[in-house]
Amino acid sequence: MTPRPNTEPEVPDPLKAWAIELFEELRRQSGEGVGINRPTYGAGETRAMETIAETARGEGLTVEIDAAANVVITLPGEDDVAPAVACGSHVDSVPQGGNYDGAAGVVAGLLALVRAKRSNVRPPRPLKLFVLRGEESAWFGRAYIGSSALFGGLAASDLELRRRGARETLAEAMAACGADLIPIRAGNALLDPSSLACFFELHIEQGPVMVARKVPVGLVTGIRGNIRHPNAVCRGNAGHAGAVPRWLRNDAVFALSELVMRLDQHWMILLEQGEDLVVTLGIVGTDPAEHAMSRIPGEVDFSLEYRSQSAETMDGFAGILEEEMDIVGRNRRVAFELGPAIPTPPARTDEVLLEHLAALCQETAIPFEKLPSGAGHDAAVFANAGIPTAMVFIRNEHGSHNPDEAMAYDDFFSGAQLLYDALLTAPEVLP
Amino acid sequence: MTPRPNTEPEVPDPLKAWAIELFEELRRQSGEGVGINRPTYGAGETRAMETIAETARGEGLTVEIDAAANVVITLPGEDDVAPAVACGSHVDSVPQGGNYDGAAGVVAGLLALVRAKRSNVRPPRPLKLFVLRGEESAWFGRAYIGSSALFGGLAASDLELRRRGARETLAEAMAACGADLIPIRAGNALLDPSSLACFFELHIEQGPVMVARKVPVGLVTGIRGNIRHPNAVCRGNAGHAGAVPRWLRNDAVFALSELVMRLDQHWMILLEQGEDLVVTLGIVGTDPAEHAMSRIPGEVDFSLEYRSQSAETMDGFAGILEEEMDIVGRNRRVAFELGPAIPTPPARTDEVLLEHLAALCQETAIPFEKLPSGAGHDAAVFANAGIPTAMVFIRNEHGSHNPDEAMAYDDFFSGAQLLYDALLTAPEVLP
Repeated sequence: MTPRPNTEPEVPDPLKAWAIELFEELRRQSGEGVGINRPTYGAGETRAMETIAETARGEGLTVEIDAAANVVITLPGEDDVAPAVACGSHVDSVPQGGNYDGAAGVVAGLLALVRAKRSNVRPPRPLKLFVLRGEESAWFGRAYIGSSALFGGLAASDLELRRRGARETLAEAMAACGADLIPIRAGNALLDPSSLACFFELHIEQGPVMVARKVPVGLVTGIRGNIRHPNAVCRGNAGHAGAVPRWLRNDAVFALSELVMRLDQHWMILLEQGEDLVVTLGIVGTDPAEHAMSRIPGEVDFSLEYRSQSAETMDGFAGILEEEMDIVGRNRRVAFELGPAIPTPPARTDEVLLEHLAALCQETAIPFEKLPSGAGHDAAVFANAGIPTAMVFIRNEHGSHNPDEAMAYDDFFSGAQLLYDALLTAPEVLP
Repeated sequence: MTPRPNTEPEVPDPLKAWAIELFEELRRQSGEGVGINRPTYGAGETRAMETIAETARGEGLTVEIDAAANVVITLPGEDDVAPAVACGSHVDSVPQGGNYDGAAGVVAGLLALVRAKRSNVRPPRPLKLFVLRGEESAWFGRAYIGSSALFGGLAASDLELRRRGARETLAEAMAACGADLIPIRAGNALLDPSSLACFFELHIEQGPVMVARKVPVGLVTGIRGNIRHPNAVCRGNAGHAGAVPRWLRNDAVFALSELVMRLDQHWMILLEQGEDLVVTLGIVGTDPAEHAMSRIPGEVDFSLEYRSQSAETMDGFAGILEEEMDIVGRNRRVAFELGPAIPTPPARTDEVLLEHLAALCQETAIPFEKLPSGAGHDAAVFANAGIPTAMVFIRNEHGSHNPDEAMAYDDFFSGAQLLYDALLTAPEVLP
């Protein structure tokens, strides 16, 4: 790879100060409580979108608002009719969330466009920043609302979802933010996927892997899909805790414990075989109307979710699950019912973009590691629309979706440098 | 053992009809809903006590009411100053319970006294039937109230307990039933334990063992004690289900599952070694205010109860529990806290009485099996007061504490025969 005359090896100090001030402005706007509140298609989200849009206009960038009320910011390129090189992320937050989940990618993208603009760098292709709404499922129970709308992916039923703790529907909330519901209801794409050459999303890591591994930047190998069973149950028979011996029990809690331990064994073996998998029972409970300290639990409800970058791994695990439920059911005289399965397909990172990001990191001596994204992201929606997509993770302590998110600005600027280099050089590696 | 001239080999038919009619009368009085309702120190219990007392008076038996409002029925013996041979059980039921839990022992006892009286059999010692109140903990959260009062075993704090779903205290409820609270509050015994030579309780089995083993009559080898931890917790760390890999999780549900499976292994081994034990986690739950399908559960609450006839086995299991919580805590980076332990000591069956009952069964060709009582009974209170005590179980389908209790009258009359024989012949084997 040849050195690039247009790029400096790191973000210039004045732009660092500019970006930190932008983060602080976003925090001031939305941080009245313990955490950050930028509700999906709500006032806090709109305020943040307007701040980004105003800032972009002030820098002489082109600002458009699409029919889903997303903001799209453009810097023209040398070849202004070629498909654009794009980046983006979301500005909404969960209730009492942190300042960086979503906003980091938006600030990094704007920083890249402003940096090119201010230093009169003309990129080979137009650069676009998508400032997206409604990524967090916490508000309407549906994730990726703004990005899904781009590709005609919102269902009529999604628009009727109601805001958490409120009567307002998603359609009403979108309309209040200036969205045009006619094309959205019709399922029309607001964006032609072929108009984008590629899409990059920078995002804080939501897990603890990079802190544990001591790397500031992560390159995402793929975005996990998942299978969710929200309403699974193990049914045995209740009985007097003192009066029923072990051999006559149909104890739902012991049976579920055995199932969990069997799944854990398979999970370990699959990881040893190099497969990608996580398994979670986030909700477990005996029935408060029935249970008692001295009553053998006849029933236990649970949720089951498993995620993988590989649809094959998830299929395989579904088979293992059925088999183990049968065995435990026979051993312990209980029946498992998983209930409906809600599948979300995994998304692939573009291999060429991934390797290009790795090469850029090596060139600029940024320590990095490749890792999967366990959480879902808007990038998955772009990837599943057929756009070559890659993601950059920034190290972050204490996870996300809480006020204790802690991203070091040094790490952020390493990632911002990488995103800037990638936006300017991606056309070199794309077909 | 010599044949006994006074006894016939089975309950005479007219007395069978009499007993069935008494059961039906009790059912009619207290069965307006789906199940039987004879609340502890409440109207349903009082009605049943009065029915028993009236019936006894009608047969010419002596009826007394003690300071705890229990009914004590006496048939004089040949040696009327010798310690009495006693039997008894309770008449209260759980809400929507069955007709036989408690009442079977009262009817069997009254049947024995009536049978001796009607056939002019003069027993060697006085026979006493204790018709007890307040055995079920469902109403005031305290079990064995009537029998505990006999031996001065009610605490001041017990008297302040409030009735389930009501403001009424136990003291108020007892007073309303005619109890004299002065000696009870003072912790005075209402009965001198040395005034009883022995105590027998006939009771339906509350578990499924005898149905599974196909025996109508069970001889109780001991009454299990228990250790209860109502408020145990496993603490890990919550996290994003997608973003935290297996090696960085502190998953409270997986950890509790591993603990349960390790305890299950020990339980199996202890049973193979001939020890008596049951282990129950009746209540298990993640926190509804915190949990989510896509959130690694950071905490799970549970109750833990283990029961054994042997205090040593319970001590040993407590040690195993501590050890396994340590191991699982280290393996899975969680902490277990059991919270306060509530112990109830086991009670011993008198060996001489047990063997005497077994000999009587063989003599009259009643199929029987020896088995422990997993549930607690008034008999344990008599045994722990130092009175030689034994229990007879009657086969019963569907467990107890529900309207589906199903005791066959044939089985009941086998047990009633055994109790009758035992009451008349116990003095032969007692010191």
